Amino acid sequence: MIERIAHIGIAVRSIDETRPLYETLGLKIEAIEEVAEEEVRVALISCGESHIELLEPTSETSPIARFLDRRGPGLHHLCLATDDVKGDDARLKEAGFRVLRPEPTRGAGGCWVQFVHPKTTGGVLLELSQGADGDDG
Amino acid sequence: MIERIAHIGIAVRSIDETRPLYETLGLKIEAIEEVAEEEVRVALISCGESHIELLEPTSETSPIARFLDRRGPGLHHLCLATDDVKGDDARLKEAGFRVLRPEPTRGAGGCWVQFVHPKTTGGVLLELSQGADGDDG
Repeated sequence: MIERIAHIGIAVRSIDETRPLYETLGLKIEAIEEVAEEEVRVALISCGESHIELLEPTSETSPIARFLDRRGPGLHHLCLATDDVKGDDARLKEAGFRVLRPEPTRGAGGCWVQFVHPKTTGGVLLELSQGADGDDG
Repeated sequence: MIERIAHIGIAVRSIDETRPLYETLGLKIEAIEEVAEEEVRVALISCGESHIELLEPTSETSPIARFLDRRGPGLHHLCLATDDVKGDDARLKEAGFRVLRPEPTRGAGGCWVQFVHPKTTGGVLLELSQGADGDDG
């Protein structure tokens, strides 16, 4: 079952140049983490039961760098929190949706994640996340 | 104060062709509304304290039709629920962010809304919404 929006990922050229918008609105960056395997720095902004994630590439070969080259900065992906990522994965495959990984894999923070390819979602890179350690996918 | 993600707006060519993805995940379309002044049909999908909104153009001159022509279907805008849209509006202007309307205006469902131009947000069309009738911006 999908429980909530876990986060919305936003591709940015620079966290430092983008944060004043959110800070002007009273939102706060809780943490900035580097995810080496994705070649990205992530600024986590808490927003109700969800997060806004600012994604800044750390190399020119990062998927986020390629997105920025192709589309410019902006909304990048939508992550939904689920309590059953394996079941969702199975249902999506059965219904003919294209997932990015053969099975859900361990993601940042110990979550289990799967992605649905934008080609089969109507242009949305959709992440499904089941939080191993509790409150955020 | 920003309280939560009110909704994430997704531009779609067809609500009927896009809904199976969300329904496969167990999410439900609660209502489909036509917003005449935006030339758009909106499918409202409840997701925790937020909504996912599928935005289908009803004419070729609709802003959503133009977005689809330019960028293709996908994530369109992010709406944050606030308890003080007039204060946010004033703070954004003072900080130099470009808003789309001179002042917050009455939106669908009786909310008060303002938009921040993607040119000053790092490519994100950001909506701020203060719900006149309670639970959703």
